[in-house]
Amino acid sequence: MLSVTCTAPVNIAVIKYWGKRNEELILPLNDSISATLSTEHLCTTTTITASPNFTENKITLNGVEESFENKRLLRCLSEVRRRADEHDKCRKEILKWNIHVVTENNFPTAAGLASSASGYACLVYALACLYGIEKEELSAIARQGSGSACRSLYSGFVQWKKGCHDNGSDSIAIQIVPETHWPEMRILILVVNDAKKKTSSTHGMSTSVKTSELLKYRVSSCVDKNIEALTKALHDKDFELFGKITMQDSNQFHAVCLDTYPPCVYMNDISHSIVNVIHQYNKVHGEIKVAYTFDAGPNACLYLLEKDVPDVLRIINYAFPNDNVKSVEYIKGIPVDLPESGTDFDQFETYGSNLLKYLIHTKVGEGPKRIDEQ
Amino acid sequence: MLSVTCTAPVNIAVIKYWGKRNEELILPLNDSISATLSTEHLCTTTTITASPNFTENKITLNGVEESFENKRLLRCLSEVRRRADEHDKCRKEILKWNIHVVTENNFPTAAGLASSASGYACLVYALACLYGIEKEELSAIARQGSGSACRSLYSGFVQWKKGCHDNGSDSIAIQIVPETHWPEMRILILVVNDAKKKTSSTHGMSTSVKTSELLKYRVSSCVDKNIEALTKALHDKDFELFGKITMQDSNQFHAVCLDTYPPCVYMNDISHSIVNVIHQYNKVHGEIKVAYTFDAGPNACLYLLEKDVPDVLRIINYAFPNDNVKSVEYIKGIPVDLPESGTDFDQFETYGSNLLKYLIHTKVGEGPKRIDEQ
Repeated sequence: MLSVTCTAPVNIAVIKYWGKRNEELILPLNDSISATLSTEHLCTTTTITASPNFTENKITLNGVEESFENKRLLRCLSEVRRRADEHDKCRKEILKWNIHVVTENNFPTAAGLASSASGYACLVYALACLYGIEKEELSAIARQGSGSACRSLYSGFVQWKKGCHDNGSDSIAIQIVPETHWPEMRILILVVNDAKKKTSSTHGMSTSVKTSELLKYRVSSCVDKNIEALTKALHDKDFELFGKITMQDSNQFHAVCLDTYPPCVYMNDISHSIVNVIHQYNKVHGEIKVAYTFDAGPNACLYLLEKDVPDVLRIINYAFPNDNVKSVEYIKGIPVDLPESGTDFDQFETYGSNLLKYLIHTKVGEGPKRIDEQ
Repeated sequence: MLSVTCTAPVNIAVIKYWGKRNEELILPLNDSISATLSTEHLCTTTTITASPNFTENKITLNGVEESFENKRLLRCLSEVRRRADEHDKCRKEILKWNIHVVTENNFPTAAGLASSASGYACLVYALACLYGIEKEELSAIARQGSGSACRSLYSGFVQWKKGCHDNGSDSIAIQIVPETHWPEMRILILVVNDAKKKTSSTHGMSTSVKTSELLKYRVSSCVDKNIEALTKALHDKDFELFGKITMQDSNQFHAVCLDTYPPCVYMNDISHSIVNVIHQYNKVHGEIKVAYTFDAGPNACLYLLEKDVPDVLRIINYAFPNDNVKSVEYIKGIPVDLPESGTDFDQFETYGSNLLKYLIHTKVGEGPKRIDEQ
């Protein structure tokens, strides 16, 4: 019997991935860039055990057994095994043993956070550890589990290159800068109280590719410029440029979703109120101090620098008053002492009570790790 | 003393005008198409009196005196006078008399309905009647009051051609089909209960022109195709094509607003719920029976055929239950008997209570008219 346990991080895109050029191999229409979040606050932990005595493959997700007959899961497994076999990294017989996969997310479910990215990154990394190929380039395999999973295999800020080969061999993730490059960067996730079910990203994306005229233009004429500018902003630690491109790309991604027929609507009135508050905050300060980005859901991810976190949190608590504001369950993650004074409240609206479910305060972090004793 | 009283209709665009190539002359970046709505349910009525004894110009809007020192208002006045003078339609001295303008909208204020279109169309038409040039092409003058006002000068379905001349002389409205061409066409306006103030169209538009990458593409590559297809749909009375293009153009217009930096958000959660219901309704019926369009505000305008009005209203009342549903103040305009049965309710969600303020049921109608006894 063999067993490994690994963790892998969530990532939040600042240049969004939207639209596939190949559904089967999960090859994207455009490059994307994300930040890898600290696994201290959000991560998937996966244990994989292989044994000659297991009569079948099994997988348990957050305590619930799921079917192993999942095309994407089976493809990741066979790809890792094929590579291990090819490179003679593992005894042939072990590759034939059945496996039991137990996987858990340490972050709240139904938060609309992209758990498939950390989930597939963790699965692929744990399989790679099991079969001895953890040092290899694995992002092309993780990509076939869930597109954005490929970005969760690296620390810091990561670019997923769309590649140009038909077989997807060059559609891989690369690190732009490690998490140590811009250690002041912080992320605040504002989880929105929301009743609505969202359209799945997979379905929304394929409808956008079929029906949105604007998506074509975004892909052909907008994204590459933004990738280039954002990469420069990261190298230069230029928050003004980083923030502007991040917000513009998020807006454009949601614009393309709305241009889809029927439209895909992921942001709601609360999301748009958050956008208002952020633009107001930046305007009051005469510079971009916080940037928002929204994935395919209503929750906001704010990027900001460590020094601005207390004041920004103070304004968020003012604009979105919450009955649980003093509870540790409301502001999770890195502890913050909220200052009594700071930016003038007069400049901001107050929205309804309890529009936010909770907040997570985290930072840019490391890639996947093996955590069991080897 | 001379006096005329005229009415002019509201119009609702099905291919939207968004973005000016010349702010001063109000020249649009793209062609647009609208339906002129019946003045029985929505109209502006304007009385203009000219007298040698008036010591100053005055204007009263809905009972409130407003400043006459309004650039757009003064330009419309001087343009009509210039033409009347040029064509010798009026005694020179009358052109020098001061005027008193009294204008009223018969539709509820704060409904977010484009009152500037009917307002400026009525002003220009009444001035033209006063000075004897009401038979001339006036849309280039009305356009300089409020862009979309030029479309309110014709009955039926109307196209505003962007034109190509720098002086705007060819940026005029033309009728595509009169209101008698497709007499079955009906319009349902769903006025949304909404607390938020919207960004003015003028400000939103100029921000979009400056910042939206997607607007450039919409203007250069999307609108002309839609204008052509919609014109064909109108000539052929092809509701399926009419409805699809109407909805897609509305979605694309709001996508461009969202791609603006900072974003302009005009639709809210209630608006998007209406969109859901319409797509659901069309899906159940396997054809497009209703098409939505949204202007720069949260209210929905639905285009549909007379035969489908009772069933669609029944479903709207189911999805958006309202305490005043039996009041004549809730469903205004053309009376409808709501049927007991029809499309199965099971297919639809019910949203919160009283999300709609009221509904207006109207149809395509005539252009401006002089209504005082001459």
